[in-house]
This record gives sequence, C-alpha cells and structure tokens, in this order.
Amino acid sequence: MRYRDSGVDIDKANEATRAIARLAKATWGSEVLSEIGHFGGLFAVPKSYRDPVLVSSMDGVGTKLLVARAARTFDTVGQDLVNHCVNDILVQGAKPLFFLDYIAAGKLEPAMVASVVAGLAQACKENGCALIGGETAEMPGLYQHGDFDLAGTIVGVVERDQVIDGSAIVAGDLVFALPSNGLHTNGYSLARRVFEQAGLAMDARVDDFGSTVAEELLRVHRSYLASVNEIAGKARIKGLAHITGGGILENLPRILPKTTGARIHKGSWPVLPVFDYIARQGDVVEGEMYRVFNMGAGMLVVVSAQDAAKMPERAAGLTVYRVGEIVEGDGSVTLV
Amino acid sequence: MRYRDSGVDIDKANEATRAIARLAKATWGSEVLSEIGHFGGLFAVPKSYRDPVLVSSMDGVGTKLLVARAARTFDTVGQDLVNHCVNDILVQGAKPLFFLDYIAAGKLEPAMVASVVAGLAQACKENGCALIGGETAEMPGLYQHGDFDLAGTIVGVVERDQVIDGSAIVAGDLVFALPSNGLHTNGYSLARRVFEQAGLAMDARVDDFGSTVAEELLRVHRSYLASVNEIAGKARIKGLAHITGGGILENLPRILPKTTGARIHKGSWPVLPVFDYIARQGDVVEGEMYRVFNMGAGMLVVVSAQDAAKMPERAAGLTVYRVGEIVEGDGSVTLV
Repeated sequence: MRYRDSGVDIDKANEATRAIARLAKATWGSEVLSEIGHFGGLFAVPKSYRDPVLVSSMDGVGTKLLVARAARTFDTVGQDLVNHCVNDILVQGAKPLFFLDYIAAGKLEPAMVASVVAGLAQACKENGCALIGGETAEMPGLYQHGDFDLAGTIVGVVERDQVIDGSAIVAGDLVFALPSNGLHTNGYSLARRVFEQAGLAMDARVDDFGSTVAEELLRVHRSYLASVNEIAGKARIKGLAHITGGGILENLPRILPKTTGARIHKGSWPVLPVFDYIARQGDVVEGEMYRVFNMGAGMLVVVSAQDAAKMPERAAGLTVYRVGEIVEGDGSVTLV
Repeated sequence: MRYRDSGVDIDKANEATRAIARLAKATWGSEVLSEIGHFGGLFAVPKSYRDPVLVSSMDGVGTKLLVARAARTFDTVGQDLVNHCVNDILVQGAKPLFFLDYIAAGKLEPAMVASVVAGLAQACKENGCALIGGETAEMPGLYQHGDFDLAGTIVGVVERDQVIDGSAIVAGDLVFALPSNGLHTNGYSLARRVFEQAGLAMDARVDDFGSTVAEELLRVHRSYLASVNEIAGKARIKGLAHITGGGILENLPRILPKTTGARIHKGSWPVLPVFDYIARQGDVVEGEMYRVFNMGAGMLVVVSAQDAAKMPERAAGLTVYRVGEIVEGDGSVTLV
C-alpha cells in the first residue's frame, strides 16, 4: 500500500504549496524574514512602535463557501476572509502585519487552491499585509468530495496608548456608518435557504437587485482600513464595531460601556435591496433581519458630538452616514 | 423564518463561547490585554527582547480527528494541535506567546467544543502560551452531521540574532533524535485504512503495542519545548527538524544547506511497535513508511561534533539518541 492509495497525494500537495509560495511572496515586505518551506513564518516587529501591542483574529467565511462552490468561483472567498479579518483587528485600532491561511478539503484541487490563494494574496496586498504562511490539508473521509473549508488568522499591531476599545464612549456621542456592499460574510445559511425556497439557481437574474444570485451573494466583503484611516486623520475615533454575525444589535454592544446605550435610526442609511428581497421572500421579521445581517451598514464609528462636524462626507470613496447617538442605557442597542 | 430554522443556533454558539472564555482565561498572563468578546485578542510584545521576530504557524490535526470522533474523545486533539504548533515554531528557536483556534462543525455540540478547548487550554498552559482567541463556526451543509474540523495558529517570538535556521550546519555535524510517542499528527489516512482492513475496531486490543487501537492512535503529540530548552542550555543548536508529514526524508532537508546531506542510521533509535505493525499488516514498504511516519523520531537536533559531548543523555525526561551525521551532499537525506 502506498500513501496515495489512502487518498492523500503528497506530490499534488507540494504542487499546491509551490503555487501558494509564488503568490504569497508577492505580498512580502522587508519585515518578512523567512521563505515559505521553513516551518514557521518570520516577521520582524516594526521598530517604529514604542510599546507595540499585537492584535490577532482568526476567522472563516462560513457557508459563503457553499455559494462559491456552487458558482465555481474561488478567488472572492479568499478576499472575503482577509478583509473580514482586517476589519476585526481594525476595530481595535490595529494595522495589519501578516496573515496565515488554512485550506482543507477531501481532495485538493491545485487550481482551486491557487484561486483561493490568489484572492488571499490580492487582498493582503491591498491591505499592506504579508501572506506569511498557512496550511493546505487533504483529508479524505473528513470532507466529502468537493467540500472544503477555509480559515485564516491575521496579526496586526497598535501602539498601546492608541488601542480603540470603546471605553471613552459617553452619552451624547454620535454613531456613523460605513456602507456594506452586500451580505459580506454573514447570514449565508439563511440567505441560501431563502433563495433555494424561491427556486432560484445561482445564475438566475433577480431584478430586485439587478444581478445574478451568485454575483450578489459573492460580492467581496469590504475592507474598511482605508476609510477608517482617513476618518482617524480628521476625528478622534472612540469606538468601531464591525457588523458581522449578530448584526448591529449584537456587535455594537460589544464596545459600549455598560452605562450607555445606542439609538440607531432605521432609514438613516440605505438598506441594500438584497436584504429587502430576503425579508420579503423568506418572510423574515425585521428584528431577525437586524440580528443576522449587516443591513447595509458594515462598520459603525463612534465619535464625540464635537468631532461629528469633522467627519468627512466620504472616506476613501465610501459615503459616511450619521445613523444614531449614544444615550444613557444598559449597554444595549435600540432600533428606532 | 428564524435563523435557527436554517440550522444555525446563535444561542448555542454563545454558550460555547462562554465555556471557551472560562477555559482560555486560565491561560492568560499579564501580556494579554483584552477580554474575549472583543473582536481581536490583544497581546503586548514582551519588553525583554532587543530585536523581536515573530514566528507564526497555522496547522490542523488532519484525519486524526476521525479517530477522535470514532472514540468520542475530543480533549487529546486539542493538545495535539497546540503541541504540534509549538514544535513548528520551536524549530526556528521561538518561544510560544499566544494561540488562536478554529473549530467548525455542521452542528456545534457545546460539550464537544468545551472538551476540545479544555485540551487546547491544558496544552497552552503546559507550554506557557496564552489561548487568546478563536472562532467556532456552525456550518450546516458544509460539514456532515458529526463531522468537524479543528485548526489553530500559534505566534511566538525569538531574538533576531538567535533564529535557528540550519544555515550554520556543515559536514561533520551530528544529528540527534528526541523520541515520539506514536504517530503524533501524521499518517492517519494510511494508518486508519490499515486498521480498517485488519478488521479492528477502535476498542480492539492489539498485543503488538499493548493497548487498544484508539489509545495508540490518540496518544498526544509530544511538545519538545522543555527538552529543546534543556539541550539549548548545554549545546549550541544549529538546526531542528520537526518530523511531521513527509517523515525524516522530507523534513530534515528543509534545514540542510544545499551542499550538505544527512546520513541517518536505521536502528540507532527505537522504532515504535505501532509502526512495525502498520508496515507488516498494511504491507507498506520501508521507504514509504519513512516518508509518511515519524518512525519514533519526533524531533531531530543538529549540533557540531564538539558540542556532541555536551549533549545530555536525557532532556526533560526524554532519551536523546545519536542517529546520524551531516555529510557533503545535495541537501538530501540517506537512510543507512
């Protein structure tokens, strides 16, 4: 018996590794000290920080992968994953340093892996982040043929006295939103079920949102790095909330002091047509929609009332919406 | 339609998150600045380093998960994952700082998740590493019921001028081995197939190795941190190779300068009975065995001939075996 007979092809894995190495190297700056092929990725802590704090996050892209598989489009989920992770550390004020990925499948298809990694590398470049390592795992018996999973870890850095954590938020502060461009990476189990029940295939065109189901569902999760950097140059950011699973209702409370609350005004930013469609077609009540989806608001920014006047109308190409205010409260969010 | 109808239970996910938070906090030292529940984990770069280099690695535990599932034992794979990652950065001289985990399943069972995380937390504590964050993802449709995957990322640190990379290795140096205690985390697809073909259930006792199939296959991947630290206090380590997938034949070359080679003497360390059993029962040729399994040698250590006399006979409880020497060569390993 050879290893290949048991369903694992080491040569094919090595071929995928070489393709990854080429794509990854294009994202490396001078801080990256190692070549892929060593056991671990080496990254020098930038000298410019007085008291550097590392901020890290690990995530997947959830069942958006099933949409990608059905549409045979694999580069966008790579971008989704990086941008999602960039946003997750951005909310604490961190700038990305490096990224590692994990791709697991029952059977590794080198072309699929290369496409995923091409997306990872593109988004890493766009966010000034080095794709420093990762793992591709072929696991017959654990993943059904065609199934795969994708996860990633980002590590970034922030000066200790510049960590953003929401602790300075007080009643009277204002809440702004940066727009999402679709579902981003959350709510796909529900969305897929709604489209399935409507009998719509991936390539079906839906007039409500003017594109195919696949195009709408695979829009790349936005990175808010450039927009937040632009805002931070103009106003003091007291808190940032990345609107992921749990929606505004569960993500904004994560940064609110327990004696405050937030009042968010429905209608103060554009809810994307895809959410209207899902609510209507799936008969999903409004409270549930706001608990599952970002509803068009991908990132919330809290600033003082004084700084509100300094907020730009647009930041790195995105419209900035004023969507609510901080009030006395118990740490929760009210939709009004 | 509510989100729960689509197979995702946010309350259950939150319950799992709370269990994880309790276990994880027990691993935190003063460098950890955040509470889980924020978006990213915060870890202060230790002040004691002049020129710190971060060394990171991401990995899974492969199809050892299928053995864990069959045996309904989930804490050991958590330990496997951490120890594997600790070894992967140890080979470049790095000391672990923090760890993040990713657990994905079709349906999250809080008891299973808590058991995996208990294993992660235990191994993190043993290796002085903070379990700083992670993601649990419930993905109906992507994972079959009962299936799950587990991956993790470790970040460690090493002083820049103390990175170990094998570049100082020359002909005449000697190779030592630290023993493994079983398959560690590699070769499970082949091993499972051999045991299946032999008609052996997980709880079947095998006299050849004196335990049940499950006990043998689920032995926890050894961390070599303590042993390598003890050796490093006595001799200058020129290179370390963690023997994972690809065995000695593919892992030792990763640190050899291209003008050197290694001659490894079979019989100079004990090959564990489980490997003899797999070779015989599965009719696996010797070359393939050495390409897939660690064969009893979990970590190789290269030191100069002068330093060989300083090598301890035992390091942190493990016997140190002299197993070969570095010769002139083309970067490859010869088994003699």
